[in-house]
Amino acid sequence: MATEEPIDVGSASRQGGARSVGLVETQTFSFAEPPDAMELECGRRLGPVTLAYETYGRLSAARDNAVLIVHALSGDAHVAGYHSPDDPKPGWWDLMVGPGKPYDTDRYFVVCSNILGGCKGSTGPSSVNPSTGRPWGLEFPVVTIGDMVRAQVRLMDHLGIERLLSVCGGSMGGMQVLEWAVEFPERVASAIVIAASARLSAQGIAFDEVGRQAIMADPNWMGGDYYGKATPAAGLALARMIGHITYLSDEQMHAKFGRRLRGGEGPAYDFRTEFEVESYLKYQGDSFVRRFDANSYLYITKAMDYFDLAERYGSLAGALERVRADCLVLSFTSDWLFPTYQSKEMVRALKANAVPTTFFEIPSGYGHDAFLLPNEQLAETVRGFVGNVHRHVREGGAKGGGP
Amino acid sequence: MATEEPIDVGSASRQGGARSVGLVETQTFSFAEPPDAMELECGRRLGPVTLAYETYGRLSAARDNAVLIVHALSGDAHVAGYHSPDDPKPGWWDLMVGPGKPYDTDRYFVVCSNILGGCKGSTGPSSVNPSTGRPWGLEFPVVTIGDMVRAQVRLMDHLGIERLLSVCGGSMGGMQVLEWAVEFPERVASAIVIAASARLSAQGIAFDEVGRQAIMADPNWMGGDYYGKATPAAGLALARMIGHITYLSDEQMHAKFGRRLRGGEGPAYDFRTEFEVESYLKYQGDSFVRRFDANSYLYITKAMDYFDLAERYGSLAGALERVRADCLVLSFTSDWLFPTYQSKEMVRALKANAVPTTFFEIPSGYGHDAFLLPNEQLAETVRGFVGNVHRHVREGGAKGGGP
Repeated sequence: MATEEPIDVGSASRQGGARSVGLVETQTFSFAEPPDAMELECGRRLGPVTLAYETYGRLSAARDNAVLIVHALSGDAHVAGYHSPDDPKPGWWDLMVGPGKPYDTDRYFVVCSNILGGCKGSTGPSSVNPSTGRPWGLEFPVVTIGDMVRAQVRLMDHLGIERLLSVCGGSMGGMQVLEWAVEFPERVASAIVIAASARLSAQGIAFDEVGRQAIMADPNWMGGDYYGKATPAAGLALARMIGHITYLSDEQMHAKFGRRLRGGEGPAYDFRTEFEVESYLKYQGDSFVRRFDANSYLYITKAMDYFDLAERYGSLAGALERVRADCLVLSFTSDWLFPTYQSKEMVRALKANAVPTTFFEIPSGYGHDAFLLPNEQLAETVRGFVGNVHRHVREGGAKGGGP
Repeated sequence: MATEEPIDVGSASRQGGARSVGLVETQTFSFAEPPDAMELECGRRLGPVTLAYETYGRLSAARDNAVLIVHALSGDAHVAGYHSPDDPKPGWWDLMVGPGKPYDTDRYFVVCSNILGGCKGSTGPSSVNPSTGRPWGLEFPVVTIGDMVRAQVRLMDHLGIERLLSVCGGSMGGMQVLEWAVEFPERVASAIVIAASARLSAQGIAFDEVGRQAIMADPNWMGGDYYGKATPAAGLALARMIGHITYLSDEQMHAKFGRRLRGGEGPAYDFRTEFEVESYLKYQGDSFVRRFDANSYLYITKAMDYFDLAERYGSLAGALERVRADCLVLSFTSDWLFPTYQSKEMVRALKANAVPTTFFEIPSGYGHDAFLLPNEQLAETVRGFVGNVHRHVREGGAKGGGP
């Protein structure tokens, strides 16, 4: 939870009058202790389950100002602020969460939890299997976006939040937002789906699969049983490199790296890292393996692959018929992993169900990663949308079937 | 060379009155015997050099009907026809080469050679290093598109072809066409550049690099010294899977595989191959390793990465100023590996130099691979363009600085 007096511990997060939430701590919530283990979509049961989470701001007496932010593949609970005074970097969406920022922590109570299956404090394949006393590895059950969201529902119950003012997420976070809006319609006043889709495309599945193959081909992977030994770092780094290409746009890669060689002394005529774009990807891959578990990468990408609201309800319109939230759908012009046409499919299905829906395709050259980068239109659109919903909720005029 | 009486050994290649070239044989040509070794762009010398090649049709007495077709990353000299009566598949561009086909072997003498650095009969890293008696492996010098083309020039000299009626290629083949047109302007009457670019983009380099990393991370790769032992099949298969995603379009993947599961019995909730798109990629990867050498994959992708006409001459217009050929530039609407904007850059630079240039963006949903697939506009455009150039050359009216 954020400290009571937010302190500014870095200039990185300053925007106008906006400030950092200051020092924050990750907390944990455990539930589903056997025999009350959680039932998973795959048919297996899992318990106990722990979620790591952070909160910022204060829940109002009316409990009508809670916002849930859900993260993408490699994210964690640490959205905003700093973990220590000498923490070099703030949370992953510090741009958006803090006093005076779009998710204004002077007005809203913001929650973010690390997903089920993750490796940042929540139960996942690197957690200890209580029945063996050893890390789960590939014995961990395959979890789905639905399982992740059902775990988040338990956390909301724990925090006393009956109905969320807003659920917001980008990429796989956007899938979780859709799952919330479709499966828990009474508990979501507004949903913000950024750079996401109601089902992963065949191309998306293909990229996920080559990443998984890279991990599973690493001899250190050992069928997932590598904990306490050498890790499949080369395979995970390669998976991350593949992923990173899909997060950037062709035009951004051209602008950022072009065809420049490191050192700039002409071709080396060998197979060492040479072009700046290679060096960048290698750095991204190498730094990722220091902060992420290879098995979690397998499980999380598989959850994305399985996500398909249309299949579950016969059609996209059939699924989104259940939504009672006001919806904001955002895409980015240069995002080719979750292109605008997929957002538009969603918007058409929402509108066919008369769900109040706002859609913008935001101009950006930064590809899929644009949702994580400074973007005034993104920030101001989210600020305005959530502010309006908040006003309506407080006036008792919000749509939807709240309690 | 094609047999004198072309026989039709399969219905696959029938189109209207067009026929197969019939049974063909791959031949070899060796040159650069030391001390006359070939000087390479990297500064090293290589010799002897062997090129595998095939020819179809007959060279006219005036030697004015020779066409060179150059292949892409994984191609070979076998463009058309069959190697035996029970050969299940014709050459890789049988659609385009044969009696009555766009490259009509009743009119043209068609040549195709496997590239230097390849593994289909030409000298490459899997060839024996004469100074050690063992396969070169990574001791093989890094070759460039320029080196490949200079080797082809030697083959043309050997075949008695002073000036080519047409040089044509797609993808990396298109890069070789550009190299021919820029570096040997007097020897090329017309150039056809399909789905290619005058320099590989940063995104293209990035995809090549992750493919190479996949190979080099395979423990069987052994620094390239794996000949006669277990090969880095898993790494090469993964590289091919990554490549294949870039050869197909998002829309084609959706149409061909969608989100269908093999067997169609619902999710397996494990990490085995499950989606049809995964199965397709796995098949492509596994079949590739049976016909391709991993080190050649490294060398050929590196040659693509280094290709940059603009850098060599200060600007693209500066490079293309040298061209004396009539040019035909073709791109495909759904090709995102070599997108149309790159072809247009080339066309603008050609037109700035008053080079007679025809450009079409051909509608196709098949992505980069479209150039290898049946496409009437592609076939008829090439047929018409080459026919016109042939007529002009025979009438002595062709542009350019012939012999």
